[in-house]
Amino acid sequence: MVSAKVRSVFAVLGACYLALVVQTPAQAQALAITGATVIDGTGKAPVSDATVLILDGRIKAVGRSREVSIPGSAKKIDARGKYVIPGLIAGVNLVWYHPNSATLAKFDGRYDELIVEAAQVALKNGVTGGFITWKSHGPARKARDLIRAGRVPGADVFVGGNIIGFDGMYSPDSLGEPGMHVTKTFAKRINEEWEQGTGRRLLWMTDDEVRTIIRGYVEKQDLDFIKYAANAHWMQGGSLTAQFISFSPRVQKAIVEEGHRGGLTVQAHTMTVEGIDMAIEAGVDILTHGEITGPTAIPDDTIRKLLERGVAVGVLPITQRNLDARLKDTTDAFTDFQVIAKKNRRNMIKAGVTLMFGTEAWLKSAEDAAEFTSADTVEPSLHSQLGQAHFNALMALEEEGMDPMTLLKTATSNVARAYKLGDKIGGSIEAGKKADLLILDANPLEGARNYRSLRTVIKDGKIVDRDALPLAPLVTSRPH
Amino acid sequence: MVSAKVRSVFAVLGACYLALVVQTPAQAQALAITGATVIDGTGKAPVSDATVLILDGRIKAVGRSREVSIPGSAKKIDARGKYVIPGLIAGVNLVWYHPNSATLAKFDGRYDELIVEAAQVALKNGVTGGFITWKSHGPARKARDLIRAGRVPGADVFVGGNIIGFDGMYSPDSLGEPGMHVTKTFAKRINEEWEQGTGRRLLWMTDDEVRTIIRGYVEKQDLDFIKYAANAHWMQGGSLTAQFISFSPRVQKAIVEEGHRGGLTVQAHTMTVEGIDMAIEAGVDILTHGEITGPTAIPDDTIRKLLERGVAVGVLPITQRNLDARLKDTTDAFTDFQVIAKKNRRNMIKAGVTLMFGTEAWLKSAEDAAEFTSADTVEPSLHSQLGQAHFNALMALEEEGMDPMTLLKTATSNVARAYKLGDKIGGSIEAGKKADLLILDANPLEGARNYRSLRTVIKDGKIVDRDALPLAPLVTSRPH
Amino acid sequence: MVSAKVRSVFAVLGACYLALVVQTPAQAQALAITGATVIDGTGKAPVSDATVLILDGRIKAVGRSREVSIPGSAKKIDARGKYVIPGLIAGVNLVWYHPNSATLAKFDGRYDELIVEAAQVALKNGVTGGFITWKSHGPARKARDLIRAGRVPGADVFVGGNIIGFDGMYSPDSLGEPGMHVTKTFAKRINEEWEQGTGRRLLWMTDDEVRTIIRGYVEKQDLDFIKYAANAHWMQGGSLTAQFISFSPRVQKAIVEEGHRGGLTVQAHTMTVEGIDMAIEAGVDILTHGEITGPTAIPDDTIRKLLERGVAVGVLPITQRNLDARLKDTTDAFTDFQVIAKKNRRNMIKAGVTLMFGTEAWLKSAEDAAEFTSADTVEPSLHSQLGQAHFNALMALEEEGMDPMTLLKTATSNVARAYKLGDKIGGSIEAGKKADLLILDANPLEGARNYRSLRTVIKDGKIVDRDALPLAPLVTSRPH
Amino acid sequence: MVSAKVRSVFAVLGACYLALVVQTPAQAQALAITGATVIDGTGKAPVSDATVLILDGRIKAVGRSREVSIPGSAKKIDARGKYVIPGLIAGVNLVWYHPNSATLAKFDGRYDELIVEAAQVALKNGVTGGFITWKSHGPARKARDLIRAGRVPGADVFVGGNIIGFDGMYSPDSLGEPGMHVTKTFAKRINEEWEQGTGRRLLWMTDDEVRTIIRGYVEKQDLDFIKYAANAHWMQGGSLTAQFISFSPRVQKAIVEEGHRGGLTVQAHTMTVEGIDMAIEAGVDILTHGEITGPTAIPDDTIRKLLERGVAVGVLPITQRNLDARLKDTTDAFTDFQVIAKKNRRNMIKAGVTLMFGTEAWLKSAEDAAEFTSADTVEPSLHSQLGQAHFNALMALEEEGMDPMTLLKTATSNVARAYKLGDKIGGSIEAGKKADLLILDANPLEGARNYRSLRTVIKDGKIVDRDALPLAPLVTSRPH
Repeated sequence: MVSAKVRSVFAVLGACYLALVVQTPAQAQALAITGATVIDGTGKAPVSDATVLILDGRIKAVGRSREVSIPGSAKKIDARGKYVIPGLIAGVNLVWYHPNSATLAKFDGRYDELIVEAAQVALKNGVTGGFITWKSHGPARKARDLIRAGRVPGADVFVGGNIIGFDGMYSPDSLGEPGMHVTKTFAKRINEEWEQGTGRRLLWMTDDEVRTIIRGYVEKQDLDFIKYAANAHWMQGGSLTAQFISFSPRVQKAIVEEGHRGGLTVQAHTMTVEGIDMAIEAGVDILTHGEITGPTAIPDDTIRKLLERGVAVGVLPITQRNLDARLKDTTDAFTDFQVIAKKNRRNMIKAGVTLMFGTEAWLKSAEDAAEFTSADTVEPSLHSQLGQAHFNALMALEEEGMDPMTLLKTATSNVARAYKLGDKIGGSIEAGKKADLLILDANPLEGARNYRSLRTVIKDGKIVDRDALPLAPLVTSRPH
Repeated sequence: MVSAKVRSVFAVLGACYLALVVQTPAQAQALAITGATVIDGTGKAPVSDATVLILDGRIKAVGRSREVSIPGSAKKIDARGKYVIPGLIAGVNLVWYHPNSATLAKFDGRYDELIVEAAQVALKNGVTGGFITWKSHGPARKARDLIRAGRVPGADVFVGGNIIGFDGMYSPDSLGEPGMHVTKTFAKRINEEWEQGTGRRLLWMTDDEVRTIIRGYVEKQDLDFIKYAANAHWMQGGSLTAQFISFSPRVQKAIVEEGHRGGLTVQAHTMTVEGIDMAIEAGVDILTHGEITGPTAIPDDTIRKLLERGVAVGVLPITQRNLDARLKDTTDAFTDFQVIAKKNRRNMIKAGVTLMFGTEAWLKSAEDAAEFTSADTVEPSLHSQLGQAHFNALMALEEEGMDPMTLLKTATSNVARAYKLGDKIGGSIEAGKKADLLILDANPLEGARNYRSLRTVIKDGKIVDRDALPLAPLVTSRPH
Repeated sequence: MVSAKVRSVFAVLGACYLALVVQTPAQAQALAITGATVIDGTGKAPVSDATVLILDGRIKAVGRSREVSIPGSAKKIDARGKYVIPGLIAGVNLVWYHPNSATLAKFDGRYDELIVEAAQVALKNGVTGGFITWKSHGPARKARDLIRAGRVPGADVFVGGNIIGFDGMYSPDSLGEPGMHVTKTFAKRINEEWEQGTGRRLLWMTDDEVRTIIRGYVEKQDLDFIKYAANAHWMQGGSLTAQFISFSPRVQKAIVEEGHRGGLTVQAHTMTVEGIDMAIEAGVDILTHGEITGPTAIPDDTIRKLLERGVAVGVLPITQRNLDARLKDTTDAFTDFQVIAKKNRRNMIKAGVTLMFGTEAWLKSAEDAAEFTSADTVEPSLHSQLGQAHFNALMALEEEGMDPMTLLKTATSNVARAYKLGDKIGGSIEAGKKADLLILDANPLEGARNYRSLRTVIKDGKIVDRDALPLAPLVTSRPH
Repeated sequence: MVSAKVRSVFAVLGACYLALVVQTPAQAQALAITGATVIDGTGKAPVSDATVLILDGRIKAVGRSREVSIPGSAKKIDARGKYVIPGLIAGVNLVWYHPNSATLAKFDGRYDELIVEAAQVALKNGVTGGFITWKSHGPARKARDLIRAGRVPGADVFVGGNIIGFDGMYSPDSLGEPGMHVTKTFAKRINEEWEQGTGRRLLWMTDDEVRTIIRGYVEKQDLDFIKYAANAHWMQGGSLTAQFISFSPRVQKAIVEEGHRGGLTVQAHTMTVEGIDMAIEAGVDILTHGEITGPTAIPDDTIRKLLERGVAVGVLPITQRNLDARLKDTTDAFTDFQVIAKKNRRNMIKAGVTLMFGTEAWLKSAEDAAEFTSADTVEPSLHSQLGQAHFNALMALEEEGMDPMTLLKTATSNVARAYKLGDKIGGSIEAGKKADLLILDANPLEGARNYRSLRTVIKDGKIVDRDALPLAPLVTSRPH
């Protein structure tokens, strides 16, 4: 088999990487970042001339330089004039690889490597963690575990499995029938990998039946969170004339309860105001792209409800510049919905809803880039290209009225808190926390554009060799 | 215009009919049916040697022959050895004309005549009333009003307008895009006639917005009841892999409240157990084809809930013989769902849920008949052919365990009561009620097959000239 | 049946018309047009102060007024200052009614009436004859015979049956599968009416097999000419990436020989230069839309061959103004092909190829008009609307370099000569010819726009009551 | 890039193979097969107790053992009791790899390796040569050259480029539009690789234009033969209701002349009797699957013409057993056409037309095998599986009446002669010929089943290590 051979190549490269980069725990050396202005991501005021001391992958101490004592053996980074912030965390789908038959067939058996590649592209650009759903679970968890174990570098990925209620790629929820493009056998296998028994057939079931299935799914799948379809998927019906609801209130409640029972947060894929309302009532923790509500803006009542129930909302912000280009470029209804989405984000920002930034960016090949040439190239860099898109998302939120400190939280501690992943995730610079942080040349509180002034990425307490990433790209180009 | 010319022809024929058949109110003559066994449809025991006295289209008296005095001027029907029951009433869609582009184009501007034709075919076969939804409203109401005013004979039709939440014929809810088959202009016009502003776009809206629209719709449309989509339509998504929900609980509640506020009963199109549960919670009066729940049988809890809340369920029963033929003939999932539907009806019958019989039968042309040759010809007469289908439906319910008295109610008083249409509808043989009744040669309590022993149909107190119906058929054949 | 009733209405109207308009042969009265400039359509110089004497539907004499003696009983038309020319004859498809399922279903059983309507709209506007193919044969011949017998007014229609090698409307040659739009039974019936056994299945056959079929077809169908597919139809393959050939040289030859053997001219549907070459080699008399050759202009050699073999070419000219609008309006390849078509017409005009003007205009309803709003409304009147389109076609040929006298022949005697229909067709003002002629206010030799100055239409020697046409329109509006 | 890495793996494996297997020319050792019955493939009677002496990859001598002197240094194979015949040569498409998007994407950049794999599977099973068309040319030629140079083992492949007149994989000629399955950029690239400028657009052109293009194509593409579409492809129109012709007679002639001018034989893809007739008239050397003529059997006249013009016909024989299974299994028209095809082969065999056996077998993966489970598994081995299918094809021809000696020629010398490839191809055991031959345990003249008794394969004078093939399979399983 191809994959076997290539996999061994990959294993060799991985081994090389491990030999060169990974420090064994026994020889753990302290790392001190000194002289910087630290903005810790919790909302507290910046501390100038501060020191962050890191040991064993964790933050040992942070504070005024004079208050933090640095062991003699510590490696030091002189960060005077610079800014230290937590590593960024994408609150919704960290990455999507081109979801077509070509990608699925070409990388069949190697989806884990695609996710590792994505995690490396993200990490290189300051994103130290992100969330993944509606992909092949096994490979996603494998990538997660390799990164978590330090065997390959990469942003942490947290795996949410299927979007409960969606069928796999070869279904009306995505590519439709396989036709002559792939074999039926392949399509069936892919669908099963995606669905893990939690696909569309659940829509026929009673709350008790769904509860039983979700309980088994949560127990078996080793997930970091779960996600379900409060609304149906876009593809449904091939038109945007309507947006259906997937589950009754009591089924939604059963899903949420089973997620919580398994110690996981639960998020909902929503597409309408009513979908949001039902998800809130069902007790979800998080809404995915909660600002996309078709032609109807979210009413104040619903925004208030989000606030009161403490539901966090993952958003996919785009700049006005990008939106204008899209509006000029296409007449499709979805673009009109983006106008409403932008309005919804403004209103939620104003009201103080807890937002989490995200992009659903793509791991783009050269051929993909040639394919998508118009609106998404308006931004200084490709809007939806993994590694660049998040900078644009931050600028979009700024433009929508978010204050600088909230913006930082939206990209760091808000996400960590909403997902309740404890020690597994960073999000703030506090003693005891995971040492995922960034050193910037310019002050992010003086403009979202300054997130681009990225100088150094530290993940799990170690300086990332950004130039080397991605190590073994399958889709994107090798670094040069 | 064609229709103008033909319409005038029709008017002439109608006028002839009126001249021949209609008695003017001034000359109202009493009608007495004597010597019959009367089964009044309320569930009371049959009364033998009974007389039914009719005046001015209403039942003046009913009772033992010796207890009812007959005016000398009364016309008498000697019904010794025969059985008198209320006229049958179809509790769900009385008729569907072949819903394709050919029918829509051919009878464009004449849909009212199609409904009159259907009402006449029904009446000829003992169905004195029925309910109509998801058609062009104006023509449906026109047909209703012509019949109600006695200007043309026919079963009473009660009009329910759009299935709120469904788009019209040229949408994913039915025929899809018009393609090259009809003009876009025509498709748009048909859709608007169907939807009357209550189509799929409501799925994007909040409860307040939907409430406002339904209020206006109820006020404006002069309907006899309203119906909404608790579940989406079959067509949705082009597959039976899932069945979506159309509206959130609070939107469903808004629709129900606005129907009730307008003095109308509200029914729901349901397709899943969860759809049923949500409709019950929203307060609906009636479920349409409530026994069709895909691959999942209705649980006992839900059946209990139907009983407790007094929700009536319109059903579309088919015989085992018919079902076996279908199962042999096709592998489509919908046929498998019929197996579950049959089980659901058995269970609801056993539990005592108020059922209403129905057929959604077609007004079939010879060409339609040639088109559908297999399973639906298994029955002694065409299963789904208007005028015959209801006899099979009654036999199916009997076979599913319904006792004879309940069966009669299911076809008469249950329907009348559920729809709360008061004087406008018959359903039982009681003094003061609308005089819609049938004389049978054989006792319907001794076997559902005896409903076929139809001898005489009386509608609004007058004997129907069955041989003359339908008067001016467009689709079916002329009587000979 | 509807049609039966309506048909009788139509019969009544027809009878009225006959009573009012038709003069019985016994009482035939001579008609003399005096003082006009006669341009006889043969190419001879105009004769001023001329008289045309008509008797029994034929031209009795034509010449200088002083040379033609007029019977005292003759009805006289003083045409001083006016121009008399032969009635125009459309050399290719006179009319197309909207070829969709709506039209087919709505007028099922009445296609003859549609053709009569078209013939009346054409006649009203100066077109006294035209050719019809690829429609239901029986109705087309019925319309032809009604008009030929003088039972209804209308342009003469000459019927060419199927385009041999094309399947009917519900095939890849036109609307494709019927889907849910019409019944399969209907689709099958329509296809059979169209094909008459000469559809696509002939493409599988040997020359001998095809010869036998065409012989039977010619013998049985009572046609005025035959037509076959040298090239496949546009629809084929759903794309314009290629244009196939339908028949081998020897099969084409067999078809042509069998047409000639039956005394009929044979024409070919061509779409490529190679298709044209094969048709010429096979011995065809006429090419339909011979100027449409995709992206490849007709080479000089091929134009020469057309000249040498005396093949007449039916064309569908459009003005530059119209073409420019289309080019602006659409990016579809077919429009680009129109640029080449225009060039081809210019080159054929220059070389002296015998052209025949045509339009393939539509009998448009108001709903059709609403459907097609852009490019085809550029002209002073709708370009492709029957009754107007031919005026534009004449202007287009003028603009493409055709001299005025050839232009007149292209619209009259060229067509008559090419089809070899003898007495059945007019085309020139010569003694003994069919008396189909027009009186114009302005000189057509001074500008193609002057064809619009139509004052009087004479068909079969009688003055047409243009204001009354169409008599009983089904699709277009009634005259007012 | 994946392919780069994998390619290097392949290069390593290839190098290993070369090191182990390939003998350098300098050390050429004679090889003598002694004591066998030699059936030389030319039609001459078998020679028993014969010796074949091989030197430098060529047959040095063949004859009675006592007449052939063997050098002392020669390696000897004692073949007493065995049968030596020429290596088999597949006269039409040697192989097809699963032509779907999955294969195209997965092996993008490695199609040469797929062809090498196919050539190795073929060689292992006694097929020492075969012909390839309608694939990506560059990779096909690369595979050919690697094998020809002895750098990898494999049956010789001879490359015919595009089927002139067909578009590539993402066109109506195959998979249709790419949809969401692959990018448009990829589809365009694949199409261009397939077409090399000779696709469907040629159907619009004149003979001169096509001639110029084919001249350039022949000069540039380094092909072993050329092939053009006399008929269109099956896919065309999505139905089997018709089969079109691609090119006019003069265009076909131009293509044939340009092939011949470049020293290449020319073959035609035909699908109808008329397509065959036109191809013969155009002067082709070979017909591909010439026995497939839809529902019309090839008439005697046409068979005679094939004989007289010496046109060789590549066929795809299937056994009656296989055909019966297919007929039972499916109702598709193509299967009915196979009944006619079988009849055509019988008739051509009877008449003595030069046939060449072939299979168009697939290089099947396990997933492909799971996909195609019915009719094609009827045979002792998979009918259409590369490496097995040719044995069935030989049995089918025997069953259709072909005598044993002609059968051998049909699989060897007939093919070699028809393609006129001289020294590059084997096909007979004669002095000076390429030393491609097989040693069988059983006499092939005593039954086609005996071809399966394959003992030894000798290619280019060397014994093939059959157990090692395929060396580096991408699609099939590794040998074990």
